[in-house]
Amino acid sequence: MRISELAKRSGVATATIKYYLREGLVPPGTLTSSTQAQYGEHHLARLRLIRALLGPSGLSIARARAVLQVMDAPGDDLFAALGSVQQATFDDADGVDTAKALALVDRAGWSVDPSSPEVAQLARAITAVADAGFTLPDDVLDTYLAASAEIASAEIAHMPTDAADALRYAVLGTILVEPLLAALRRLAEQHASAERFRQADPT
Amino acid sequence: MRISELAKRSGVATATIKYYLREGLVPPGTLTSSTQAQYGEHHLARLRLIRALLGPSGLSIARARAVLQVMDAPGDDLFAALGSVQQATFDDADGVDTAKALALVDRAGWSVDPSSPEVAQLARAITAVADAGFTLPDDVLDTYLAASAEIASAEIAHMPTDAADALRYAVLGTILVEPLLAALRRLAEQHASAERFRQADPT
Repeated sequence: MRISELAKRSGVATATIKYYLREGLVPPGTLTSSTQAQYGEHHLARLRLIRALLGPSGLSIARARAVLQVMDAPGDDLFAALGSVQQATFDDADGVDTAKALALVDRAGWSVDPSSPEVAQLARAITAVADAGFTLPDDVLDTYLAASAEIASAEIAHMPTDAADALRYAVLGTILVEPLLAALRRLAEQHASAERFRQADPT
Repeated sequence: MRISELAKRSGVATATIKYYLREGLVPPGTLTSSTQAQYGEHHLARLRLIRALLGPSGLSIARARAVLQVMDAPGDDLFAALGSVQQATFDDADGVDTAKALALVDRAGWSVDPSSPEVAQLARAITAVADAGFTLPDDVLDTYLAASAEIASAEIAHMPTDAADALRYAVLGTILVEPLLAALRRLAEQHASAERFRQADPT
C-alpha cells in the first residue's frame, strides 16, 4: 500500500509516519519509483507498536528507538535483552542512594539486580514520599509488596517463551498496563472510601 | 525568614519560589519593607507539598493550583472535595467510551461514580491495550482487580477523618505512591521471571 493508505489504516498522519521513517523507528518501504514506496502489513503492526510505546505515559522518541532496536534483534539471551529494554525505558540509576529501596526488596524476599534501574526508580519514589512528609504505614507497605508479587506472578506465568514474543509482552505489559493499574487503584479507592464513610455515617 | 533562607532550607531556587508566588501557589509573605517579605514554617511546608505535586509523575502548574485551592478550603463535604481534587488531577472524561471500563468495574463489584475521571482513564488504558493488539488474560485481569482492592482497602483504613488531613492523604497518596507501585511491580516481575526461567532451565 502507499503511505497515504498506511496513514488511513493506522490512524497516524502521513507527516508523522515520514517523521518516524526519518528517525529510523519504521523501516523504509519498498521503492517502486524514485519518489514512491510501498508499505506492507508489518508497517501497520509497527505503527501500532510505536503508538503504544509513545502513548500517554510512554517513552520519548529516543527511548522508543532504543527499545525497538532490542525488540528487532533480541539475540539468544532473553535476560540480557530484557535488561537492555529496562535500561532504555528508565532513567539513569547514577548517584541514587538505593539503601532503603533494597531494604524494602529484601523485606519482600525478592532477588533482583541491585544495580537495575527499577531499584533506582523505587529509591526515587521512596525519597519523594519522605520529602513530602508523607508516611506509609508498615501494613500498607506490606500490602503493596504482596499485591505486587501476586500481579507479577500472574503476569509472568503468561510470558511467552520465544524471545521476541517475550520482549513484546514485557515491553507492552509494562508501558500499557501501568496506567491501567493506576486507574484501577483509584477506582478501588473510590469504592473503599465510600464503604468506609457509609459505615461511619449512619444517615 | 527571608526568601533566600527559605530557598536554602527548602532546596527550591529563589527564582522558582518567586514564580510560585506569582502563580499563586505559595501565599505571599509578610511585608517588612516595600521590597522585603518574611516567610514562615508554613511556607516551607507549602514548598514541600508543591514539590511533591509537581514531581516526576506529577501535575502541571495549573492542575497543582486547582488541587491546592481545594486543599486550602475543603469545606464540609469531604466527598465533594475529593471529587474536585480528582477532577483537577485527571484529563477530561469527555467523549470517552466507558462501556468496557464500567464492565470491568462491575466485575470487581465496586460501586463508583460512572462519570468520574478515573473511569475515563481506565477506558483510555483499555483502548490503548487493545489498539496495540495486546491481550490481557482473564486471570491476570482478575489478579489486577483483587490486588487493587487489597491495596485500596489497606490505604483507606488509614485515611484520616479530618477533611483537610484526608485530602492531603488522598492527594499525596495518589501522586507519590503511583511511581512507587510501578517500581515495585517491575521489581516483582524481575524476581518472578528469574524464578520461572530458573525452573525452565536446569543448567
